Amino acid sequence: MPGVGSLCHHGRVTAVDRTHPIAVFDSGVGGLTVLHECLVWLPHEDFVYLGDTARFPYGGRDADDLRARSLAVARRLRDDGAKMIVVACNSATSAALPALRDELGDAVAVVGTVEPAARLAAAATRNGRVGLLATPATVASGAYARTLADVDLTSVACPKLAPLIQAGGELDSRVVALVDEYCEPLIAAGVDTVVLGCTHYPLVRAVLQRALGRGVTIVSSGQAIADEVERQLTERDIENDTDRRGSYRFVCSGDAGEFRALAARSLQLPVDGVERIDIEEYVGVAGRAA
Amino acid sequence: MPGVGSLCHHGRVTAVDRTHPIAVFDSGVGGLTVLHECLVWLPHEDFVYLGDTARFPYGGRDADDLRARSLAVARRLRDDGAKMIVVACNSATSAALPALRDELGDAVAVVGTVEPAARLAAAATRNGRVGLLATPATVASGAYARTLADVDLTSVACPKLAPLIQAGGELDSRVVALVDEYCEPLIAAGVDTVVLGCTHYPLVRAVLQRALGRGVTIVSSGQAIADEVERQLTERDIENDTDRRGSYRFVCSGDAGEFRALAARSLQLPVDGVERIDIEEYVGVAGRAA
Repeated sequence: MPGVGSLCHHGRVTAVDRTHPIAVFDSGVGGLTVLHECLVWLPHEDFVYLGDTARFPYGGRDADDLRARSLAVARRLRDDGAKMIVVACNSATSAALPALRDELGDAVAVVGTVEPAARLAAAATRNGRVGLLATPATVASGAYARTLADVDLTSVACPKLAPLIQAGGELDSRVVALVDEYCEPLIAAGVDTVVLGCTHYPLVRAVLQRALGRGVTIVSSGQAIADEVERQLTERDIENDTDRRGSYRFVCSGDAGEFRALAARSLQLPVDGVERIDIEEYVGVAGRAA
Repeated sequence: MPGVGSLCHHGRVTAVDRTHPIAVFDSGVGGLTVLHECLVWLPHEDFVYLGDTARFPYGGRDADDLRARSLAVARRLRDDGAKMIVVACNSATSAALPALRDELGDAVAVVGTVEPAARLAAAATRNGRVGLLATPATVASGAYARTLADVDLTSVACPKLAPLIQAGGELDSRVVALVDEYCEPLIAAGVDTVVLGCTHYPLVRAVLQRALGRGVTIVSSGQAIADEVERQLTERDIENDTDRRGSYRFVCSGDAGEFRALAARSLQLPVDGVERIDIEEYVGVAGRAA
């Protein structure tokens, strides 16, 4: 598998090989909630997860910055041989999805978080009132508001929640208090469905469900994305149809040991080695796609 | 709330008070997967969780031992004012449920693990072939085989799995290898539904689903029990209908610090204090029920 084990720099992959891995990226461990669903429901595929931890959190960055960074990450993943790239971060999806699809063209499929989750939420609501919890960048982008134009959407920006989860401390009363604060406007608005518009939030799903009450349906990106990935693999005829179990591995742009410890606590599956990689050299590089 | 905060010894509760807590017990942290579902779906109720960690694991004990121990724990919980007792352990349920119901009479409702999970599995299977993963004690009891008499049941005793999960180490390749070994006979039998017949196993659910493949439906006790608890609360008209959020707390019979650390990793909700309590004095004590 060229590039998969070696992560060769500036390698070129010209044809899509169904045995190549699917890449999943985010700025931190939040995207692991998406990887988790992909690993559980697509066990024959190989995956590589890229945590751009040197730039955590994406959620506080402006759109230009996010677009440049996402393009750099995606070029790196393409050159390493990814057959599909999953943008497992709502902020990056909101800012960069069209740019990523332009850059990568038909060679590499790109799946983002917003549309699959929004579709699930629109299907789930019974009273037409939907809540959104997300980072300031995602709320400001209006990506969910555009995709959920037919429902009464109440959006709450939660600047402190993803950093608190990423910090990896034990779940405690601070998390409960913060979740209560952010959920209060949604309860006041009478929503019956809440979209977790940040991939970190499923890591506190039980706290959220207790705060919102049992009448509220929580929708997260993970399962929706796993379904969308499967759909696109089939449509493009690039499923890994071998019979063996798939592999998965991790790279990050920050401290590898720190990332490994956090990932081991979040993924609920074994986390073996984590390799530190450099993304800086890909920032601002022109596209190399055929 | 008499007895709830104080855990008074040998107190007597004569009438069922809807504001009293629901007690959940197991020998270790496995039952926390049941508590988790109850906390998420019954947020207005108060709960007390008793980990009989001095006697972990229940899964290796014989039926007489399990019955005596479960009766002691249940007497203690009744005297402390529990309005309902959930036996969050398949081994204890298999060995002791009728004895517990005899002992506690109408005063305290008793909910066990086997029937709710078996009903879910029977409803879920499409090809009539169901797998059971459980402790040696639960498999030997035949409790699932009796309850699932109408399906083709393949049972696998998994002596090493609950102790490995209880040990609380990081999920690693040993867990994956063990899960693969125990799942192999189920895959060979072509089951389309697998009952997790031990409350520890949902803590490795992702590993199990990857081993079994996406075509297999996994059924665990947690959600089934939360539904059954709600049904019985309604039927007995003892729901806690106050508007405030419920509380929950922990007691255990072994080392409190060790239990707290494990519980904090397993519950996905804050774990505040854990109090060590004595159960020995309740072993062999005659019933005190009115």
